[in-house]
Amino acid sequence: MELLKEVLEKIKPSEKERAIVNAVTKEIVGIAEEEIEKKGVSATPRLVGSIAKDTYLAGDHDVDLFLAFPLETSLEELRKTGLELGKSIGERLGHYEVAYAEHPYVRSTYKGFEVDIVPCYNVKSWKDVKTAVDRSLLHTEWVIKNINGRNDEVRLLKRFLKGIKAYGSEVYVRGFSGYLTELLIIKYGSFMNLLENVEFLGKSKIIDLEGWLRKEPEIAYKTVEREKESPLIVIDPVDPRRNVASALSWEKFGVFYFKAREFREKPRLEFFFPPKKETGDYKEILKKKGTHLVTLIFPKPELIDDILLPQLERSAKGFEKSLKREGFEVFDLNWGYVERAFIMLEVDRVERTKVLLKPGPEFLSERALDFYAKNQKVWIRGKRLYSEKAVKESIVDVIEELLAKNQVALGKNLREPIKEAEILLNFVPPELEEEAYLFLSKEKWNIKG
Amino acid sequence: MELLKEVLEKIKPSEKERAIVNAVTKEIVGIAEEEIEKKGVSATPRLVGSIAKDTYLAGDHDVDLFLAFPLETSLEELRKTGLELGKSIGERLGHYEVAYAEHPYVRSTYKGFEVDIVPCYNVKSWKDVKTAVDRSLLHTEWVIKNINGRNDEVRLLKRFLKGIKAYGSEVYVRGFSGYLTELLIIKYGSFMNLLENVEFLGKSKIIDLEGWLRKEPEIAYKTVEREKESPLIVIDPVDPRRNVASALSWEKFGVFYFKAREFREKPRLEFFFPPKKETGDYKEILKKKGTHLVTLIFPKPELIDDILLPQLERSAKGFEKSLKREGFEVFDLNWGYVERAFIMLEVDRVERTKVLLKPGPEFLSERALDFYAKNQKVWIRGKRLYSEKAVKESIVDVIEELLAKNQVALGKNLREPIKEAEILLNFVPPELEEEAYLFLSKEKWNIKG
Repeated sequence: MELLKEVLEKIKPSEKERAIVNAVTKEIVGIAEEEIEKKGVSATPRLVGSIAKDTYLAGDHDVDLFLAFPLETSLEELRKTGLELGKSIGERLGHYEVAYAEHPYVRSTYKGFEVDIVPCYNVKSWKDVKTAVDRSLLHTEWVIKNINGRNDEVRLLKRFLKGIKAYGSEVYVRGFSGYLTELLIIKYGSFMNLLENVEFLGKSKIIDLEGWLRKEPEIAYKTVEREKESPLIVIDPVDPRRNVASALSWEKFGVFYFKAREFREKPRLEFFFPPKKETGDYKEILKKKGTHLVTLIFPKPELIDDILLPQLERSAKGFEKSLKREGFEVFDLNWGYVERAFIMLEVDRVERTKVLLKPGPEFLSERALDFYAKNQKVWIRGKRLYSEKAVKESIVDVIEELLAKNQVALGKNLREPIKEAEILLNFVPPELEEEAYLFLSKEKWNIKG
Repeated sequence: MELLKEVLEKIKPSEKERAIVNAVTKEIVGIAEEEIEKKGVSATPRLVGSIAKDTYLAGDHDVDLFLAFPLETSLEELRKTGLELGKSIGERLGHYEVAYAEHPYVRSTYKGFEVDIVPCYNVKSWKDVKTAVDRSLLHTEWVIKNINGRNDEVRLLKRFLKGIKAYGSEVYVRGFSGYLTELLIIKYGSFMNLLENVEFLGKSKIIDLEGWLRKEPEIAYKTVEREKESPLIVIDPVDPRRNVASALSWEKFGVFYFKAREFREKPRLEFFFPPKKETGDYKEILKKKGTHLVTLIFPKPELIDDILLPQLERSAKGFEKSLKREGFEVFDLNWGYVERAFIMLEVDRVERTKVLLKPGPEFLSERALDFYAKNQKVWIRGKRLYSEKAVKESIVDVIEELLAKNQVALGKNLREPIKEAEILLNFVPPELEEEAYLFLSKEKWNIKG
């Protein structure tokens, strides 16, 4: 298809880029080998990830350098020696910092390339796997062995998924991982063929490239059973215990499903390179819908997205629950950050009339006589005295009171910043105008946009 | 006290009135005896109630004529013969109609007196009691034997309770019955002494004039245990199984408690003969409180108060519950009838913005493709497709929809009339203006009014 060629021209690394990538990675591996030798460590440097598999997109080349230790190495030894070795490689590369996943690892940059230096075990099979990253070695090997020249098809699929915002297995995306796209291409042979079979894929649901359901039925069926609520079950060719698509959400699979159908009917470049969504005036939307926007803005804490975004989500849902309890209807939620972090709540109203029923004591008591004497109007329901007054309450006051009384479930690291948040009614600062429009108009979620 | 004399002048039947009452009741009993003889029924006519006990208020004299059958009579026989006999007495008196309580009985009028003709068993002791009305014979006898000339004190107490709206044991009043006022006077000797002891009464709580707790401890303590949530436990002098005050609510006892204290401090004629509550403009109250009034008006069904008012209460509470579920806050309820029956709801708002979230089908289906095609904006949550639109909804529309869908719990006999009800917003017809004012201003419940 002419269109796909046009896309490939944009996303396939040029010969020149490939040469640079190859040269640089070779240098990096060389430096690693030197450091290993110098230190006398028994580890092997291994390139993994999309560069190793040659499935990276033009201009998008992070180097994943794994340091594979013998299986006999103890976990402490691996952590300690691995980190030390990483640091000295990082030093040689220029500069580094230590990052934390299951184990600490080193992040560095070299000649404009981001380099992650990650210690792991030198596993030969899934039975050897001890840490979460070990499997990457096997993934890389398996893909290289099976990709069979369809690397560009993977690139098309990756770009397509990026275009429709369904790429990435991060907890705040819950889309398709790089490895999953590779397996889908290996299964279906080409990007277009995958798209042709998206209904079949959704219905058959299970992909088992290595025939684990035959070879290791007990383990593989356990995986299927455990993952039965997932939209896809792709049994990892290198590990029957794992569903490669376990992070994929129904939402993101659904977006892919509909976009695949649309692309088949009307293939357009925009699927791969979507124009910025058209935006408009959020105030118009508010007027049209008759709803209201409450925005909390506060300084973005120094947290990586994997931690910050789930905590923002949790906090937004905490506000939803607490405000519902206070009699406000919350129609939808939005969160994120631009310069500062924000939580947006679309609500039915910004003021409530509250008739404050003042419950008094039960009436056979001294305090009851007091209450009776002090209030102008008093009546009895059950054994208790009551009086009342009516007040108008702004949702801002209600939120401030909820926060002061710790009656909103908030993300752990956001409690303090949210207490200091600015609370804006039907108004956002310029940095959030577009976000507010996309949220209120639903264009943010609209698949048909 | 001079004031009490003044009250008694108004409420004590004059000699002339007494003579008429005596003459008329004698005639009625005479007619009953003739009919019994004519029919050859073995029943004895017995006068019970406030005329028999001489505790009636001037101008307030309904005749309770009981037809006491021997204990051997079967229940069917009693019902049948009792009703027939009642009808022929009623015919002799002029006209009659049949009314229904536990058993059918006859209501008639004679020379301006209302006459209830009720068949019962001629019981001598609580152990004989078979039907709910039998005990009245024993009550009348006991009061006559023990009243000891304090009849006018009973009259003062009755009038006082009427003045503060705490008289009557009907289910929609839950106040002091006539028999309970008599027992309270017999216990405390006088109206003023009862008032002096109201705190003590509230705390000691138990009155046992016949010493049942000694004579029949097992039965009497069971009564106390069963009634322990009542504000008063007055063990029936003629039946240890019964709390004479069991119908008395905490509310009505509370009103009595506070009014008794106030009267002791500042005795005034108004306690006995309260002026009509001062009324005002309900629209002003609405404006001041910022709340809203929803009134349903419909033709009053032909039902006695004992049935109609509890059903109106049940229906009002049904609306409260359903509207809360729909997102409206209901602050207070009122019900009753003037010319027509009404239910009033004080609510926080009369319009809601409702973002109609249109849930579609799950997306791996033919219907999902349809939904996707037909809606302008579509997104996915979980496996499901969604679209939305926002609408403004009036509480009137919401109520009409709730009624159309049978989603309000209504009193059994009110379902049809309420479906035809007019629903008024922040406006009532002239007949209800005063009611609306008293309700919204809380003067209706205000004890201090």
